[in-house]
Amino acid sequence: MNIALYPGSFDPPTYGHLDIINRSAKLCNKLIVGVLINSHKTPLFTVEERIELLREVTKGFPNVEVASFKGLLSNFAKQCNADVVVRGLRAITDFEYELQMCQTNHVLHPEMDTIFLPTDVKYSYLSSSTVKEVALLKGDIKAFVPPYVKQMIDKKLTN
Amino acid sequence: MNIALYPGSFDPPTYGHLDIINRSAKLCNKLIVGVLINSHKTPLFTVEERIELLREVTKGFPNVEVASFKGLLSNFAKQCNADVVVRGLRAITDFEYELQMCQTNHVLHPEMDTIFLPTDVKYSYLSSSTVKEVALLKGDIKAFVPPYVKQMIDKKLTN
Amino acid sequence: MNIALYPGSFDPPTYGHLDIINRSAKLCNKLIVGVLINSHKTPLFTVEERIELLREVTKGFPNVEVASFKGLLSNFAKQCNADVVVRGLRAITDFEYELQMCQTNHVLHPEMDTIFLPTDVKYSYLSSSTVKEVALLKGDIKAFVPPYVKQMIDKKLTN
Amino acid sequence: MNIALYPGSFDPPTYGHLDIINRSAKLCNKLIVGVLINSHKTPLFTVEERIELLREVTKGFPNVEVASFKGLLSNFAKQCNADVVVRGLRAITDFEYELQMCQTNHVLHPEMDTIFLPTDVKYSYLSSSTVKEVALLKGDIKAFVPPYVKQMIDKKLTN
Amino acid sequence: MNIALYPGSFDPPTYGHLDIINRSAKLCNKLIVGVLINSHKTPLFTVEERIELLREVTKGFPNVEVASFKGLLSNFAKQCNADVVVRGLRAITDFEYELQMCQTNHVLHPEMDTIFLPTDVKYSYLSSSTVKEVALLKGDIKAFVPPYVKQMIDKKLTN
Amino acid sequence: MNIALYPGSFDPPTYGHLDIINRSAKLCNKLIVGVLINSHKTPLFTVEERIELLREVTKGFPNVEVASFKGLLSNFAKQCNADVVVRGLRAITDFEYELQMCQTNHVLHPEMDTIFLPTDVKYSYLSSSTVKEVALLKGDIKAFVPPYVKQMIDKKLTN
Repeated sequence: MNIALYPGSFDPPTYGHLDIINRSAKLCNKLIVGVLINSHKTPLFTVEERIELLREVTKGFPNVEVASFKGLLSNFAKQCNADVVVRGLRAITDFEYELQMCQTNHVLHPEMDTIFLPTDVKYSYLSSSTVKEVALLKGDIKAFVPPYVKQMIDKKLTN
Repeated sequence: MNIALYPGSFDPPTYGHLDIINRSAKLCNKLIVGVLINSHKTPLFTVEERIELLREVTKGFPNVEVASFKGLLSNFAKQCNADVVVRGLRAITDFEYELQMCQTNHVLHPEMDTIFLPTDVKYSYLSSSTVKEVALLKGDIKAFVPPYVKQMIDKKLTN
Repeated sequence: MNIALYPGSFDPPTYGHLDIINRSAKLCNKLIVGVLINSHKTPLFTVEERIELLREVTKGFPNVEVASFKGLLSNFAKQCNADVVVRGLRAITDFEYELQMCQTNHVLHPEMDTIFLPTDVKYSYLSSSTVKEVALLKGDIKAFVPPYVKQMIDKKLTN
Repeated sequence: MNIALYPGSFDPPTYGHLDIINRSAKLCNKLIVGVLINSHKTPLFTVEERIELLREVTKGFPNVEVASFKGLLSNFAKQCNADVVVRGLRAITDFEYELQMCQTNHVLHPEMDTIFLPTDVKYSYLSSSTVKEVALLKGDIKAFVPPYVKQMIDKKLTN
Repeated sequence: MNIALYPGSFDPPTYGHLDIINRSAKLCNKLIVGVLINSHKTPLFTVEERIELLREVTKGFPNVEVASFKGLLSNFAKQCNADVVVRGLRAITDFEYELQMCQTNHVLHPEMDTIFLPTDVKYSYLSSSTVKEVALLKGDIKAFVPPYVKQMIDKKLTN
Repeated sequence: MNIALYPGSFDPPTYGHLDIINRSAKLCNKLIVGVLINSHKTPLFTVEERIELLREVTKGFPNVEVASFKGLLSNFAKQCNADVVVRGLRAITDFEYELQMCQTNHVLHPEMDTIFLPTDVKYSYLSSSTVKEVALLKGDIKAFVPPYVKQMIDKKLTN
C-alpha cells in the first residue's frame, strides 16, 4: 500500500482512532486522516479544531497527514491518489453500515478498495459520542482520549 | 395469495424496491404498493410525486397498483383486503426492525401475515437514503435508480 | 402462489413447523412439505416415519402434501412445479444461513424464488434438536410437539 | 444482591418493563427503578408523570422504589449503594448498545456490575416508542401496557 | 439472590470463566459451579479432573461450591434450590444460543430465571476450545488460563 | 505492506477466494497464500492438490506465492516475515469468528496485525463447503469456481 485514507468525523479523536492510525500507518507509505465536513450535524469541535487535535496527537507518526474533505469519499480518495480506504470495525452494527458504505463506494469508484482493521478489544466500547456524553455529564474521560484532547474538551465545555 | 401489500416510503423508489415489486407481483393476483404518509420526516419527494414515480416505473406490471396510506399498516391492509404484507430484507438490522414491526402488527391484526423476500445481492447495499446522499454530493446514481427516477431527482436537486 | 414447497428435515416436526405449514398453506393453492433425505446425519426417525408423522399432524389441511426428496432443492422444486420455496425464520444465525442457501439456489435455478415467514414468537426458541435433547434427558416435551409426535418420540426412546 | 438499580426512560412503562421489574425484584432485597432525566428528548410524559405511572403499576411489589436521576448512571448507582445495574435484553441491536454502555460504565465505576435479563418472548417485540407510535395512529395498545398506563396515554393524547 | 448456579463444560476452566465466577459470587450467598456431564463429547479432562481444577482455582472464594450434573439443567437447578442460573455472554452467536436455552428452560421450569453477565472485554475472545487448540499447536496459553490449569494441560498433552 | 499472508483451507479454492487474492495482491509486494494442514477434517483435495489448484488459478499474479503450513498461524506468519494477515469477510457469523481468531493471534503474536477485506457482494453467499455440497448433488458449479477447479472436482467425484 502506497497511500491509504482513513476518513471519519473525529469529533473528538479517541484512543480507538489513534489505535487504528497507529496500526494502519505501519502498513502504508503515507496515511491521510480525512476529516469529513458534514453540514448536517452540529459538532463539538469545528473542522479546523479537529484537524488541529489530530495533528497534535499524531505528531509522532512521520507518515501521517491530516486533511479535511467534503462531498463523496470516493472523489476525495481519487484526488489523494489513495489505493485504499481504511476503516475500524468495532461491532456488528458497525460492520453492516460499513459494508453498505463500502459497496456503495465500490459502485461509484470500482478501483478503490476498502480494508477493515478490527478495533483493539480495549477500545471496542469506545465512540466519539460516548466520550462527549460522558464529558457533558461530568464523568472522567481520561481513559478514552489523549491528555491534549481531554484538555481541549474541558476547555470547550467550560466556555 | 390473492392481494399482497408492499408498504414503504419509496423516497425515492430504487432498483432494490423494483426487484421486490417484480418478484412479489409474480406471487399474487394483485400487488398494492403502499406509500406511507409520514408527517415526521421531510421527504425529498411529496407523496403525490412518489406515487407518480412508482406508477411510471411499474407501468410494465399489469397487476401492480400504487396507493398512499396514513395510520396503522394493519388498518390499511384490512381496508385493501390484503392477505399478506410483503417486505424486503437486506441485512441483520433490517431483520430485527422488520421482525419487531411484524410482531406488533400480528398483535394488532392477527389474521394478517407478513412474508419477507431477501433482496437480490446486487442491491443488498442499496437504500433510498444512500441514493439521496450520493445525489446530494453530486455522485452518479444511475446504478441505483431507474432512468426516470434519476431524471426527477436531478430536476428536484437543481431547483 | 399456486404451488409452494416447504423443505426441511422435520426430525421430528414441531409446533414451530406446524405454525409455518398452517400459515403458508393459506397463501397458496397447494403446499408440498418436502422431507430432505440427508445421508450425512443419523436421524431419530427414518424418512418414512417422518413422512407418516407429518401426514398425521397435517391431516386437517386439505391442500398440504408430504413428500421426500434427495439431491438439490432447486431440482426438486422444478420437478414439483413449485413457484416458490417457503422457509421459517427464527433468529439471526438462521437468517444468514438461509440467505446463503437462497442465494446459491438463485444461481442454480434463477426462476425459483424463496419467501421467509418469521416464526411465531411463542416458538422462536424451538428447534427439532432442542426437542430431541430435552426428550433424551427425560424432560417434558408436550409444549414443543403435537401429542401424536410426543407419543412416537416416547415410543422410539423406550425401545 | 442487596440493592439493584433498573434504569431507563419508561416513557411510558410497558408490560416488558414490568416483566423485568417483577423478575429482578425477586433477586434482590431492594430494587430501585431509576427514571433518567434526559434533556435531549421531548418525552410524552414528564419525569414526574413517569414516576407516578411506575409507582402505580409497581405498587404490588413491596421492595420496589421509584426515583429519578440525571447525570452519569454510575454516579447514581454509587449514590444508591446499588451492587448491580439490571437491564432487559430483547434483541441483537439492544445487546450491542447495552454492552457498550456496560463497558463504559465499567471503566468509569469498576466496582459496579451489570446483569442482563432476557425479555420474555411474549414482549420481545415491545418498546416504549412502538407503544407511542401505535397509540398516535389510534391503534389498540391494551396488549402492550397496563390498564392504568393505557388510560393515562389516552388522556394525554386527547388533550 | 440466595443460591445461584453457573453451569458449563469447563474443559478447561479459563480466565473468562473465573471472571464470571468472581463477579457472580459477589451477587449471591452461594454460587454452585455445575460441571455438565455430556456423554456426546470427548473432553480433554474427565469430569472429576475438571471438578478438581475448578476447586483449585476457586479456593479463594468461600461461597463457591463445585458439583457435576447430568440430565436437564432445570432439574439440577431445582435440586440445588438455585434461584437463578448465571451465564456469561461474549458475542452475538453466544447470545442467540443462550437465549434459546434460556427460553427452553423457562418452558420446562418457569420459576427458574437466568441472568447474563457480559464477559470482561479482555476475555471476550476466549473459549475453552481456543485454549485447547492453541495448546495442541504448542502455543503459549499463559494469558488464557490460571497457572495451575496451564500446568495440568501441559501434563495431559505430554502424556 | 511488504509481505501479506492469506491463510485458509481452500478445499477447493472458489471465485470468492480469487477475488480476495486479486485485491490483496495489489496492496502488497508479496502475497503468500497459506494452505492450512488440518488433521481434524477429511478434505476433498489433499494439501498437495490444493497447492497445485491455487498455483494454477493464481499463475497470472506475479507476486503471489502458495505454501502450506501446520501449527499456529502466528508462527507461520513470523516465519514468512508477513506484516499482516489478510482475511475475507462475508457475513456476521464470519465476522465474530474472525474477530475471535484475530484477538487470540494478537495475544500470541502482538506485532502481527490482521486486515479484513469484505467479499464482493457477487460472492457473498459462496463457501467451499457450498461448492462441495452442490457438486456432490450433481448441481452445476461453474458460477462458483474457475474452470480448472471445476474440472478437477468433476474428476475427483467420478473416481
